[in-house]
This record gives sequence, C-alpha cells and structure tokens, in this order.
Amino acid sequence: VRAILFDMDGVLYNSETPIEGAAEVMRWVREQRIPHLFVTNTSSRGRRQLKEKLNRFGIAAEENDILTPALATAGWLREQTSGPVALFVKPAARSEFDGLTILPDQAEAGARYVVIGDLQEAWDFRTLNRAFRLLHSDREAVLLALGMTRYWQASDGLRLDVAPFVAALEHATGRQAMVFGKPGAPFFHAAASRMGVPASQILMIGDDIETDVAGAQRAGLKGALVRTGKFRPADLECGVTPDVVLESIRSLPEWWSQAQ
Amino acid sequence: VRAILFDMDGVLYNSETPIEGAAEVMRWVREQRIPHLFVTNTSSRGRRQLKEKLNRFGIAAEENDILTPALATAGWLREQTSGPVALFVKPAARSEFDGLTILPDQAEAGARYVVIGDLQEAWDFRTLNRAFRLLHSDREAVLLALGMTRYWQASDGLRLDVAPFVAALEHATGRQAMVFGKPGAPFFHAAASRMGVPASQILMIGDDIETDVAGAQRAGLKGALVRTGKFRPADLECGVTPDVVLESIRSLPEWWSQAQ
Repeated sequence: VRAILFDMDGVLYNSETPIEGAAEVMRWVREQRIPHLFVTNTSSRGRRQLKEKLNRFGIAAEENDILTPALATAGWLREQTSGPVALFVKPAARSEFDGLTILPDQAEAGARYVVIGDLQEAWDFRTLNRAFRLLHSDREAVLLALGMTRYWQASDGLRLDVAPFVAALEHATGRQAMVFGKPGAPFFHAAASRMGVPASQILMIGDDIETDVAGAQRAGLKGALVRTGKFRPADLECGVTPDVVLESIRSLPEWWSQAQ
Repeated sequence: VRAILFDMDGVLYNSETPIEGAAEVMRWVREQRIPHLFVTNTSSRGRRQLKEKLNRFGIAAEENDILTPALATAGWLREQTSGPVALFVKPAARSEFDGLTILPDQAEAGARYVVIGDLQEAWDFRTLNRAFRLLHSDREAVLLALGMTRYWQASDGLRLDVAPFVAALEHATGRQAMVFGKPGAPFFHAAASRMGVPASQILMIGDDIETDVAGAQRAGLKGALVRTGKFRPADLECGVTPDVVLESIRSLPEWWSQAQ
C-alpha cells in the first residue's frame, strides 16, 4: 500500500479527546510524504470546522485534505446535467454546494435532486413531508444521501443520524437513495481519485468494522481496524477480516515499515 | 361467501362525500342479516369518530362494527404477558389501550412494546428519537405498527402516513415491525374471529387492489375491487385478480343474489 485514508472520530480522537500519539503519527505521515486523506461521514459539520478540530489536536490539515459526504455529493452533482437541487443539510454543509442551482427552501416541487443530510432537531413532519413531496412530484427526481449512518452517541444518549430519514423517504417513494459516504464504494473511489492512487494501493484505517473496513474492502481497498473508538472485541467475530488490526493509530509507523 | 368486510374511504364515501347508493346498500346488508364489519387502516381517528361519520352519511353502525389497527393491536397486547406499552398514537386512539400498562409520555426506557401510529404534525426529531431509544435500550422490545400506509391525499397535497416512520425505526434498530392493519393477514384474521366466520367465507370489499384485495386473498378471504375511490384501470393489470370487480358498492346486492 502507498496511500492512507484516515477515519477521524475513534481513530484520531474520541469526540473531544485526542487519541494518544495521533499528532505524532500524523507528523510522521507527512514526513514520509505518504498520500493521505481524512474521510468522515459527518454531515453536520463543514470541512472548515473539521480542519479546525484537527488543528486543535496538533494535526496539520487543510480543508482539501478532508473528504465529506457533502463534498463528494456536490462533486457528483457538478458532473450531471444541471437541474435544481433541494438541500436538506445543516447550514455548515451548504457552502459545498455553491455554484449549483439550489431550490428555494419552501419549494414542494421542481427539484431534480433531493439531498438528505443529518438535520437532527431540524427534522419535523413538515420538513420530511416536503422532501417526500419533492420526490413524489417528479418520477425522475434523484434521492441522494449524505452517508447512511444509523445513529450516533451524543452526550445525552443515542441519536438518530441521517439513515433512518433516508429509509423513511425510500419507503414512502419506493425509490432507492444514492449513498455518498462510507461504506458506499463511490465514496472510497472518490477518495482514490482525489489522491490519484489506485484503490488496491490504499489502506483505509477506521474503528468501524463494517462502515470502514468491510466497506473499503468491498471497494477494492485494504482495511485496517484500530482497537480504539467504538471498537469492541466482538467486532472481530462478525465475519469481516481486516487486512491488519492495530492497537491504535500509534502502531501505524511500526506496521508500515515492516509491511514495506 | 356469507360475511363481508367493508373498507370505508373510497367504498362508502370519498373523504367528505358519500358514494351514491352506499346508505341503501348498507340498509340492505342489515335487512339480509349478513355478518359484516367496517375495516379501516385509519389510526388518526377513534372508532367513535368513524361511527359518527358513517351515521352522518345515513349508515347505521356501532363502534363494535368497526375494526381499526388500534383496536386490533390493543386486543393482541391484552393476550400477551403484560409489560409496559409506549404509545405513539393520536389522542383519539389512546382509549383503545385502556387497561394496559402505559408508559409515561416522556420515558426513554422501560417499554416492552412500542406502538407507532399516524402522528402527522406531532412527529418531530425528539419524538421519533424517543421511540428509537425505547427500542434500542431493550433488545426484547417489540415494534408494533398501526398499519403500513405510506401516504394519503390531504386537502393540501400528499402527506406521509405511519409507514415511513415505522420504516425509519426498523432501519435504525434492525428490527421488524409487527403490522396490525391491512394488508397484514393478522388484521383480516382478527376481523374473521370477531365475526365468528371462517376466512374462506368472507368477502373483503375495497378500492385498493393491493392493500384490500391482494391482502385479503393472501389471508384466505375473497377480495372484491370497486371502481370508485382510488381505483384506476391500471390496477387490473398489476398481477392481482380480484374475485369480483364491482362498478361501485351499489352493485353489491345484484352480484350477491346471483352468487348465492
């Protein structure tokens, strides 16, 4: 392998706490000039906020080093024949869609593409129903999902993420969403194409055996599992075999030098 | 056949307009002493409201002549070993669950059964997330759906019904809902049991080729399609063959006397 994709939460930090050695390892990655990207399914924060978070933990990163579902979706949309886009995304993610034709916020018809992100508390009946009416009123309208994460651990307990709302719209319309985010292959391929490295020469490092490791492997990449973040020993008995299991991101340089 | 199930909306009336001849036919049904029930997937109105609507259109009916998903669900719950029930149903449907142990409205854990009805505008992120937390916090908790209607035609346009919200919870929890309502076989069997007539001797009359006709046939009943309500000629080319197609409910007596 000669390039690396880094999942962020659970690999470099746990929520607001950096994982020991992460900053040193990322310094080593830069010194070795290993092509790399940070890949995350977060659709509630923009790349600037994510970059600032990495920087705060002593990790050098530019916005261009980060791939989010919103960026991948906007990139795909720019390649299509144009048509109005309806955005159901947090304000922080809206700027990724600059330059595209964005439908006004209250419109209930006229969208060619309907983009569903993680709105959290902003989801209510009227908002979800508006997305449904947009899809129902045009048989050709495409449903796009910023990832398919089912839920996440918030400070007050588990919270629904983007996937259940996409599932609701899929069920209501009988249409299937195009998913931009892990574990979807198009997302990993977008990362490969940004780095200019073939998929088979890329290692994806993550703490989610399914989303990170199995997803990467299905897309033709190698998958590394770290024993940090949401990792549980039972993950290794679920039928997915990582190409490598690392105690933490700290073990990366040692494994890398042995593997070369 | 010797008993009849009547779908309501689309068969006896269209929204607020009675279908011509419906009151006369229902008088004939009572004179002939044909066992019958009104079966509807409505979970936003209680049986009293539905009875009053029928009465307003000149159709004699008692609450006991009406089978709703809420009534069928409550009946099933009373047969189970007891356990707290969390209700996500409109106020009008709550009284059906009298006598069961109902979880307080803000609880996020402790439910053995989670009942999802059609809440319309009352759905917001917190409410759906609360249903999710109740299910996630107890692996044994059962998800119950008051029907699986995807959407309905309101005066201001299409509106999401109960099914998309059930689908969201199914996706988030990886659990499958027990569905009480058409086209689920348990619902038709509950109707048969209430009338004390074997399924094979019951005719279900509805305007929905899938929910009413195919559902009834799969449950061992006969299915009649009326060319009123949401009926469209293309319905007859979808691979489901009704046992009889009636111009409208008005044609029932003539068909019935020929069929005997």
